Amino acid sequence: MVEVALGIDIGGTNTVYSAVDRNGNCLVNGRISTNDYIDFSMFLQNLVKSINNSISSFDQDKLELIGIGIGAPNGNFFTGTIEYAPNLKWTGIIDVVSSFKKYFENIPVVLTNDANAAAIGEKVFGSAKGMKDFIVITLGTGLGSGIVVDGKVLYGKDGFAGEVGHTIVYYDGRECGCGRKGCLETYASASGIKRTVIEMLETSNLPSVFRGLNENEVSSKKIFEAATKGDQISIDAFEFTGKILGWKLADVVAILNPEAIFLYGGLAQAGDLIFNPTKKHMEDQLLKIFKNKVKLLPSGLSCEQAAVLGASALIWKERGI
Amino acid sequence: MVEVALGIDIGGTNTVYSAVDRNGNCLVNGRISTNDYIDFSMFLQNLVKSINNSISSFDQDKLELIGIGIGAPNGNFFTGTIEYAPNLKWTGIIDVVSSFKKYFENIPVVLTNDANAAAIGEKVFGSAKGMKDFIVITLGTGLGSGIVVDGKVLYGKDGFAGEVGHTIVYYDGRECGCGRKGCLETYASASGIKRTVIEMLETSNLPSVFRGLNENEVSSKKIFEAATKGDQISIDAFEFTGKILGWKLADVVAILNPEAIFLYGGLAQAGDLIFNPTKKHMEDQLLKIFKNKVKLLPSGLSCEQAAVLGASALIWKERGI
Repeated sequence: MVEVALGIDIGGTNTVYSAVDRNGNCLVNGRISTNDYIDFSMFLQNLVKSINNSISSFDQDKLELIGIGIGAPNGNFFTGTIEYAPNLKWTGIIDVVSSFKKYFENIPVVLTNDANAAAIGEKVFGSAKGMKDFIVITLGTGLGSGIVVDGKVLYGKDGFAGEVGHTIVYYDGRECGCGRKGCLETYASASGIKRTVIEMLETSNLPSVFRGLNENEVSSKKIFEAATKGDQISIDAFEFTGKILGWKLADVVAILNPEAIFLYGGLAQAGDLIFNPTKKHMEDQLLKIFKNKVKLLPSGLSCEQAAVLGASALIWKERGI
Repeated sequence: MVEVALGIDIGGTNTVYSAVDRNGNCLVNGRISTNDYIDFSMFLQNLVKSINNSISSFDQDKLELIGIGIGAPNGNFFTGTIEYAPNLKWTGIIDVVSSFKKYFENIPVVLTNDANAAAIGEKVFGSAKGMKDFIVITLGTGLGSGIVVDGKVLYGKDGFAGEVGHTIVYYDGRECGCGRKGCLETYASASGIKRTVIEMLETSNLPSVFRGLNENEVSSKKIFEAATKGDQISIDAFEFTGKILGWKLADVVAILNPEAIFLYGGLAQAGDLIFNPTKKHMEDQLLKIFKNKVKLLPSGLSCEQAAVLGASALIWKERGI
């Protein structure tokens, strides 16, 4: 028998899972669509079917499921619920942990938000092994953050800590989906850099591959590709994004004094294009006592597996792994 | 024998101490000048003499000293040193804990910064009893903060966490003593509100008791007194100070999700004049999930004793008080 923890990453489009052993090997993998299901219970029924098929078809040693860890947008560790997640079709409060426990009665089921899961994954299987104070910043459609303090995820009073993406850069800045203005995630995220390019096309006369295109044809991935080919607007957009992110990370460092900050997600895949300006402007804005002390790092986990490894690590960390 | 922990608050002008029993009673009190001593070892020698005299003159039950807790600007819990404190005459790194231990060999000596000491004091003896996640903001000459997460002070990697006063409000804002621009403490502090009044005297034509006075004649205490007598510039200065503070506290809430924020120090004594605008603008800027959940409170400790109670609580908390 091989012990495995099931890691499930619920995303807006797909839900991905892996049965992960104590060394971080993904022995069984699978996925189902998330947004095909308007009803959570139908989604869950099909997910469980897929999981059971995958696990029973594993043809080497038998797998012993020791627990289920779930990462999801707005997942609350304390209540086991997903609350008003803007990118999911299930509205209101979804009682995720209780619902899973009906199918998996005798093993622990743990839920947290995707950024916290990423942080735990980095600590258990990635580059934060041995670190007690660090932060994971996920640069996706929005900006999420998982904060680890003295070896434990910082949840706060109600489990909602880590909303770094909703700290304010400019009090009269860009409108945010949260109803306020100037939030960090309106600048430093995949959608933020897209807004920056569209703004720069208006304010600058530089030539760009994006001139004359429809808004829908601009994406963070295309901005990255254009920047690597020398498109100046795209390069400037990365510089601007890194500046804003670096500034706000300096604030976060002042409050939390972490050993390292990890950048995760699609935008972090741009490598030096995003890391260099972020590092430069963060250092410029750091108090003297913090200068040249805080590491800015990419994830130590492979991009495809980071989310499910993080989710499974919710279980493995309880085993002292 | 009555067990007492000695709480020492090292300030720029005076150093105050109390022998505090487990119920928070200050049984013996004393003080010596801090800034009379350019040399730390001379300061310490005289402080120890004063302490020994005070304790031996206590004429009821004998006192048993169980430990010494020290709060000081830039006091570092991990290293036991005061590092480059701008308001103290001792330059460089002062090895405080080791020096005290030469005089008090067999009892624990613990040092932390004044804001962390205030936070521990509030938890052990004040209004944060039973709270696990809260923040103390000290509004003195600067702005300090002590952050408690899951029942423990947040120190971070190097013991420097909690520099909320040096998060940035405006990137092209007021010059700060730290060498940067726009730090929160240049707005929300005793010196910040003084700068605000002086600015407002220039930008507005409103009458004010401060018109025609020398800068040195403006102080946060006088601004408070003027505001209570209806001086509009002074009232507006409190409103502006509270707005900036409230805005930044909303950022801090987004990151830390605390149960409560305590306002401490001279400026907090202004009561509604500072609490009302701070609360209003904090609520305006909070994410929906945090609205009407975070208490904004005054300290539960008497103003004169808060610092020494906090310092002594560094010791008492180890006894599970």
